[in-house]
Amino acid sequence: MNKLDLIRGAPNADGGALAPIQDYLNEIHARVSKIEGGAPADYIPELGKVDPTLFGIAIATVDGQLYTVGDARVPFTIQSVSKPFMYGYALQHHGRPRVLQKVGVEPTGEAFNSIVLDEAANRPFNPMVNAGAIAVAEMMQGDTLKQRTNNMLELFSSLAARKIDIDEAVYKSELATGHRNRAIAYMMLNTAMIEHDPEEVLELYFRQCALSVTACDLAVMAATLANDGTNPVTDHKIFDTQYVRDVLTVMNSCGMYDYAGEWAYEVGMPAKSGVSGCIIAAIPGQIGICVYAPPIDSQGNSVRGIAVCQDMSREFQLHSFYNHTNVRSVLRRDYRADLVRSNRLRTLEERTLLAEEGRKIAVLEAQGALFFGSTEQLLRKLTELAENSKYIVVDFKRVHHADNAACKLIGRAVRAMANSGTELVFASIDTEGSLDRLTRVLSETAEGHALRQFRDADAALEWCEDQLLAGKGSSVGTKFSLNQINLFDGLTVEECRLVEGIVRPLVFDKGDVIMREGDPAKLFFVLARGTVSVEIKLHDKPGRHKRVASIGPGLTFGEMALLDGGTRSADVIANEKVICYGLGVEELHELAAEHPNVMITILGNLTREFSERLRHANEEISVLE
Amino acid sequence: MNKLDLIRGAPNADGGALAPIQDYLNEIHARVSKIEGGAPADYIPELGKVDPTLFGIAIATVDGQLYTVGDARVPFTIQSVSKPFMYGYALQHHGRPRVLQKVGVEPTGEAFNSIVLDEAANRPFNPMVNAGAIAVAEMMQGDTLKQRTNNMLELFSSLAARKIDIDEAVYKSELATGHRNRAIAYMMLNTAMIEHDPEEVLELYFRQCALSVTACDLAVMAATLANDGTNPVTDHKIFDTQYVRDVLTVMNSCGMYDYAGEWAYEVGMPAKSGVSGCIIAAIPGQIGICVYAPPIDSQGNSVRGIAVCQDMSREFQLHSFYNHTNVRSVLRRDYRADLVRSNRLRTLEERTLLAEEGRKIAVLEAQGALFFGSTEQLLRKLTELAENSKYIVVDFKRVHHADNAACKLIGRAVRAMANSGTELVFASIDTEGSLDRLTRVLSETAEGHALRQFRDADAALEWCEDQLLAGKGSSVGTKFSLNQINLFDGLTVEECRLVEGIVRPLVFDKGDVIMREGDPAKLFFVLARGTVSVEIKLHDKPGRHKRVASIGPGLTFGEMALLDGGTRSADVIANEKVICYGLGVEELHELAAEHPNVMITILGNLTREFSERLRHANEEISVLE
Repeated sequence: MNKLDLIRGAPNADGGALAPIQDYLNEIHARVSKIEGGAPADYIPELGKVDPTLFGIAIATVDGQLYTVGDARVPFTIQSVSKPFMYGYALQHHGRPRVLQKVGVEPTGEAFNSIVLDEAANRPFNPMVNAGAIAVAEMMQGDTLKQRTNNMLELFSSLAARKIDIDEAVYKSELATGHRNRAIAYMMLNTAMIEHDPEEVLELYFRQCALSVTACDLAVMAATLANDGTNPVTDHKIFDTQYVRDVLTVMNSCGMYDYAGEWAYEVGMPAKSGVSGCIIAAIPGQIGICVYAPPIDSQGNSVRGIAVCQDMSREFQLHSFYNHTNVRSVLRRDYRADLVRSNRLRTLEERTLLAEEGRKIAVLEAQGALFFGSTEQLLRKLTELAENSKYIVVDFKRVHHADNAACKLIGRAVRAMANSGTELVFASIDTEGSLDRLTRVLSETAEGHALRQFRDADAALEWCEDQLLAGKGSSVGTKFSLNQINLFDGLTVEECRLVEGIVRPLVFDKGDVIMREGDPAKLFFVLARGTVSVEIKLHDKPGRHKRVASIGPGLTFGEMALLDGGTRSADVIANEKVICYGLGVEELHELAAEHPNVMITILGNLTREFSERLRHANEEISVLE
Repeated sequence: MNKLDLIRGAPNADGGALAPIQDYLNEIHARVSKIEGGAPADYIPELGKVDPTLFGIAIATVDGQLYTVGDARVPFTIQSVSKPFMYGYALQHHGRPRVLQKVGVEPTGEAFNSIVLDEAANRPFNPMVNAGAIAVAEMMQGDTLKQRTNNMLELFSSLAARKIDIDEAVYKSELATGHRNRAIAYMMLNTAMIEHDPEEVLELYFRQCALSVTACDLAVMAATLANDGTNPVTDHKIFDTQYVRDVLTVMNSCGMYDYAGEWAYEVGMPAKSGVSGCIIAAIPGQIGICVYAPPIDSQGNSVRGIAVCQDMSREFQLHSFYNHTNVRSVLRRDYRADLVRSNRLRTLEERTLLAEEGRKIAVLEAQGALFFGSTEQLLRKLTELAENSKYIVVDFKRVHHADNAACKLIGRAVRAMANSGTELVFASIDTEGSLDRLTRVLSETAEGHALRQFRDADAALEWCEDQLLAGKGSSVGTKFSLNQINLFDGLTVEECRLVEGIVRPLVFDKGDVIMREGDPAKLFFVLARGTVSVEIKLHDKPGRHKRVASIGPGLTFGEMALLDGGTRSADVIANEKVICYGLGVEELHELAAEHPNVMITILGNLTREFSERLRHANEEISVLE
């Protein structure tokens, strides 16, 4: 079922919900249903007519999963729960300085409908009291009231992921009886806290309060705040992250009226309540919650709503200062190239060199989010590894986000390390759109230095290995003759000459397919010069290939032809101009009929080679696990 | 350098600090040094004598790394920054209900030294105003003032990770001039908000305010709050996590006096300031900060302290509602047993069966912290995997913490899944002390069901494979005869008989060492009945072994003896009563001299076997990467 269907309330929309959480919701709903007390608000006549037994709970996760119980799809008017979203809109469209000029951020001990204003700053104290919300309502864009109303409806529709309308009866009731709000508006006009016709500002404000929503809608709206401003159902970005932070801050200090201190202590979620009997709460990075139950207490908060939020905060440990930041988990693992090598197949000589010298190459895999604390850990590990590394590959493959702080710190680290004896090599940075900024910061930082960046850790590691081997005078790039090939070790001079007699020298150009998956296997190859790539088809992505290994001079490929003459299991492609020796399997078998030791020697060498590769692969698996 | 040396201020203690963060601190220190304004507090005569140019910053991470700049080791008196820690002490030793009875949690718009009390509840409004702090000071345990003073000194010494003393001059100055606090104490005695002699309570309170500390000390104390109550330098648990949450909540709403709203908006860190010109802030899970610069503004907050915290919050994105919760990262990876198998070596028949049926076994690796949001993701993935799995292994190896919410949810999931067609198998739960609770909850939950738990994912996977193979009527456990062994495939009847002639049947008991690492390799073995383990010595842990594979009937081990007659590379130990066939390598070579095809066939089979194992190992590496 798609996420929009869930929101729109397909009949058995909750059927797929996860049992443990659904069970909890059923239990808490049953338990809190027994709590009596409070009464529906009646200062707006229309609100007093509600069925006081209505009771619904909805939870929306940051990836759009919805859990509901009870009357979660019964419509009611949003009332003050509209305030944080209108405030988010004002910040988004006017920016912080302009909004702060019009309304403050100081909590006040006064009631939500207080007429007390911050006269020193000439603005209402905060956007969660009516005065502040009226000032914020004035900031809705549009030339006419109709346009402003439409823009407001569009905002809330995009927040709820469905079309939201006004409950006309409640709107008219508020318009007719909202004397106190009218008084507030005229007080504000008197000191120029608002500039337009108070009646028009109030009409929009009353409409905003009379929006008809359900607990499901409000859970999705709260989840949008929990999800850094992106609606988790539509993936539509509604508020910038910085403004979400401002909205949550003000909800946290001013969202529950006089109950703020105790709420912060007992429940500790940024929240907002409305006199229609709803409470929303946003748990950043996790969920949005809405509870709807009309009877409210003397402070204007839903009695059952508070009971549910208290229980949920305790049961699920959702308090803001419940710490689940774990900076240490940024270090996924680190290893050195003596134990884990790149996919480049190497000659015995190279392998021996890498086993001895590979410790000078370190690979550090980061994971998760990079923010101050986790980046500090990462850079500290980097500093530690640098002490005995010539090369460090930093792999960002599993980093899903790097904030500004992280980008700047990494940039500073690159500069600091530029003149040390260690070369930093970056891998997998630009594969993810979310690391754009890091790429930019690194390029800026690198100005003047060579910034090494590779598509993935394997390519980076291969490059580091090549550097190390080149420095050690290894034979990379030189041409191998047949008697230098490990596969023929142990053959007598005469046997070697016999094998040479059936060898065909072959030349390929860059990009040539030397052998192709599925073709009959009739030759096996010894690489004399150049490198080749071994690629397999990705069965889940037709037409796409994955490079599983690269092979350099002195090594063999297609050896399985020796055994069963079956078909090729991979493509082998020349990376550059390549010279290799092809050995016909049939000719070799004919030769072996008279000289069995040729075959025994070659198979013995092959077994030893495979066994060594297998031993290394198992070591690698054990490091990677 | 050890952490305690760092704190105690070894001469070049900061030499090892990480360049990027140290650079930032140097820059911000230089920049903010230019900010003038404010004046040192002088309501206590002794405080007015301070050098107003002193300016130090210290940051301590949750694992005890210290970064400092400027006058970070100059002593000053702690003043109001003592309040949150005394509050934590009161909660820790008297419990929440008793403490809430004595002091509230509501912010107040009044000044810190206000005499206004919450007369309705008959308690001071909160523990951050002087009245509340005096009520909290009364809760220090000890029969005499001397004992209470000693307990207080012990508390702060354990928080700072070094011995803390009282600045007698400041203490005497406060004692002599603290008339307003004396008035507050007597007001409180009047309404029984305190019960003991006000002079004795005040003496402790003045001593608490006159503790002599440095910015380094306070950074470590703040980091203790950031680190869930465990001092990151000494690893000593000082406050329970739940009380840390309460302390942070009150710091957040009441820590910065009148500046609370704007501080929450602009800086957004739970913080506390003191009139000596210090501010501490705690970033849960990340760092503790202390800035010391004596000139304070009219609200009592250090001018430079606020400037540094504002900049640091912006630069490092440390605002409380800066969201770096990432619930999705709990899913490390999942795979199925057709691609990744246990370390049990299997016969061709078994491998074929597992390649076909292995998809029915899923392995799900969790990582990081399990809390509500991440557990919801984990359980949702579990539900998804269960749709086409007979067995699911849930591996907790990389889960470092599971909170109550997570334990309960997982317990509920186990119950819910008990009667489905999928069997849940848990791995690596009790290896970590932090998962104790989960073990307990799972055992309770499992009451009546068989809860399957294995030491690690490999053992769990092997068990699932065995179940699957047993269900398919595989030959696990039956005895193999020589002509069923893959290694001899392709030998003629006569050749087979020749080989049988040189075979020695061998029987081992459980625990017997069949071959030992380093011994000369003279036999290779074919396992006919039972299973054996291959173990290697852990070179970094002398005397410890790691099981790298287990081998079942129909498979060979010690084959490398065939090739070079070198030494054994691992121990092989019988898991139970085992029957195997030993083949002398020398005899085999003698046989091959006359019948070369025997050797060619065996080596060919061996190469094929290794090649297949290598292919599988590479597939596994590619899945594990």
